[in-house]
Amino acid sequence: MDIEKTLRQFQKEVNRRLVDFFQQKIKKFKKLSPVTGEMVEEIRNFTMRDGKRIRPLFVYYGYLATGGKNKKAILDVCIFAELIHSYLLIHDDIIDRDKIRRGELTLHCRYSKDYRKLSNDADFLGICAGILAGDLTSTFSYEILADSNFLMELKNKAIKRLNQILEDVINGQILDIFLKVGRKLNKEDIFKILEYKTARYTIEGPLQIGAILAGAGSKTLQILSQYAIPLGMAFQIKDDILGMFGDSKITGKTIDSDIKEGKQTLLILEARQRTDAKQKKIIAGTLGNINATKKQIQELKKIVRETGSLDYSLREAKKLVNRAKIVIEKSNFSLEVKQFLIGIADYIIQREK
Amino acid sequence: MDIEKTLRQFQKEVNRRLVDFFQQKIKKFKKLSPVTGEMVEEIRNFTMRDGKRIRPLFVYYGYLATGGKNKKAILDVCIFAELIHSYLLIHDDIIDRDKIRRGELTLHCRYSKDYRKLSNDADFLGICAGILAGDLTSTFSYEILADSNFLMELKNKAIKRLNQILEDVINGQILDIFLKVGRKLNKEDIFKILEYKTARYTIEGPLQIGAILAGAGSKTLQILSQYAIPLGMAFQIKDDILGMFGDSKITGKTIDSDIKEGKQTLLILEARQRTDAKQKKIIAGTLGNINATKKQIQELKKIVRETGSLDYSLREAKKLVNRAKIVIEKSNFSLEVKQFLIGIADYIIQREK
Repeated sequence: MDIEKTLRQFQKEVNRRLVDFFQQKIKKFKKLSPVTGEMVEEIRNFTMRDGKRIRPLFVYYGYLATGGKNKKAILDVCIFAELIHSYLLIHDDIIDRDKIRRGELTLHCRYSKDYRKLSNDADFLGICAGILAGDLTSTFSYEILADSNFLMELKNKAIKRLNQILEDVINGQILDIFLKVGRKLNKEDIFKILEYKTARYTIEGPLQIGAILAGAGSKTLQILSQYAIPLGMAFQIKDDILGMFGDSKITGKTIDSDIKEGKQTLLILEARQRTDAKQKKIIAGTLGNINATKKQIQELKKIVRETGSLDYSLREAKKLVNRAKIVIEKSNFSLEVKQFLIGIADYIIQREK
Repeated sequence: MDIEKTLRQFQKEVNRRLVDFFQQKIKKFKKLSPVTGEMVEEIRNFTMRDGKRIRPLFVYYGYLATGGKNKKAILDVCIFAELIHSYLLIHDDIIDRDKIRRGELTLHCRYSKDYRKLSNDADFLGICAGILAGDLTSTFSYEILADSNFLMELKNKAIKRLNQILEDVINGQILDIFLKVGRKLNKEDIFKILEYKTARYTIEGPLQIGAILAGAGSKTLQILSQYAIPLGMAFQIKDDILGMFGDSKITGKTIDSDIKEGKQTLLILEARQRTDAKQKKIIAGTLGNINATKKQIQELKKIVRETGSLDYSLREAKKLVNRAKIVIEKSNFSLEVKQFLIGIADYIIQREK
């Protein structure tokens, strides 16, 4: 299976449906007022920028893994997972003070820029717009799931699962922000954040909701979970590696924002444990320093590389991916499903964006 | 019917269920981490402060109006409407920069205060906490509705209605914030904001969700809507009057925050239309001036009173309440339901908090 080709084909299917959804909403919201119409247009523009669409893809393959046959219905509903992603990113970008996402301004920064001429409080107006845009996108997600073409019982189960996913990912955010206040994270903290903030909502949740919509029992859900959690953690470790060493032109994220915002990743933790006092001082002076110089940041990256911490993180990510792949190899899923789930696991560790 | 007694008794039922719900969540969240446990405790403390609980009450009477018999099930589920209210208030308080709610610090300000010793970025941490607390409370609401003891078809319809309510109220917020940037609101704008930001979600939505859970058809939903929209608008007009002329010790809100944040209400609009150039200048210099002096604010209030704008708003609110009451008098609802819906309409216009 050519995973990149599968991804591209699937992205087209998803993007077409997202565009249709937003078009209807924009038409409706514009009737109410230009300012509400503008808000959905901004959410659409944010969502339609280049995105991998892997969450809808996992919904789709969770459905196929469980023997689901109604491909049209699952393609129509799977976009709910991309909207959940937009909702969380929009709020996350406020919280992380990120200015760039997918190569363009984050939603709240776009609003701030647009209102600069009209208001002397534009930065705050941007934050307000971001809060409301996220809130709105969340309701869109629930709407797509509640309106979808599946049995009532299955839809109810899927909505319950969505509630749990959101509870988990928001808890992951709370851990990420508040655990580090006034102290350093340990490995247990970091893995807990990886699990809650990424693994559960990026892979486990979408796969399971797809499976639930095909009527999956607890056994199938468990196998999907055993695959999804390690893979999701590997996904985030790789994301953190790309955040520090990736090409921001390809990743589309703010350059070195993880370092400046003081994100405590496995890369940082492991580097700290392998350094002398002088290097520790460099890390302390650079990490979370919004005014860190290019030279300081280069020094920090050098430490992460030369202490072997980068190699360690890569190895850990690969181990997690292998653990995920073994679960699928031993499963009874169809050949197509197995090929996809194994192929996407390799893709996740090899990707450059 | 003694409405205040009904309210007090009902508040007890609702509060008991809210406390139970939060207790379970706190237990679960504390197992994950102290910081996630703390977050739900803050949401609980915020929610359990003195509140009128009129939204759950409307869910309950919407159910009774439609002939629903399972009082336990509707009492158990109706707290979802109070949690939606908490969610929206928590985000609203960030957006309106409110510091006081129900006589104590708003949730984001409490967080800022608690983290002042641990972080030099405590104001922003407070905003982050508020965003996440609101997001979490929103999922709690959906969870209660999805888990409730009603037929799948009815629950699905109720969740669809909740999606629509949230879309409307968020649109109301967008109108409220962005329509006024760089321009003055006209009467049409103000009534649109009243309808979307308050009437639809405070009264129409809860009543209709209660009715839906009892299997209401479109005729009943329409009658409830004809009652709810004018009453909800009257509710907000009264709220704006209390915001300007009420006793902040009783209302529990920040003193004069509506004036300082520049809220454009019917009171302000009507006063503007009845004033001379000098008075217009006083309004312009005071409204939306975060540093307005006590004297300026007294002057503004005097203008609103002496131009007859206060009386006009009160008259408009009473007219709307009467319109709502006539709908109920002509309806086929039971005596108990009629007495409540008419009694609460009178209460809404007479209340001091």
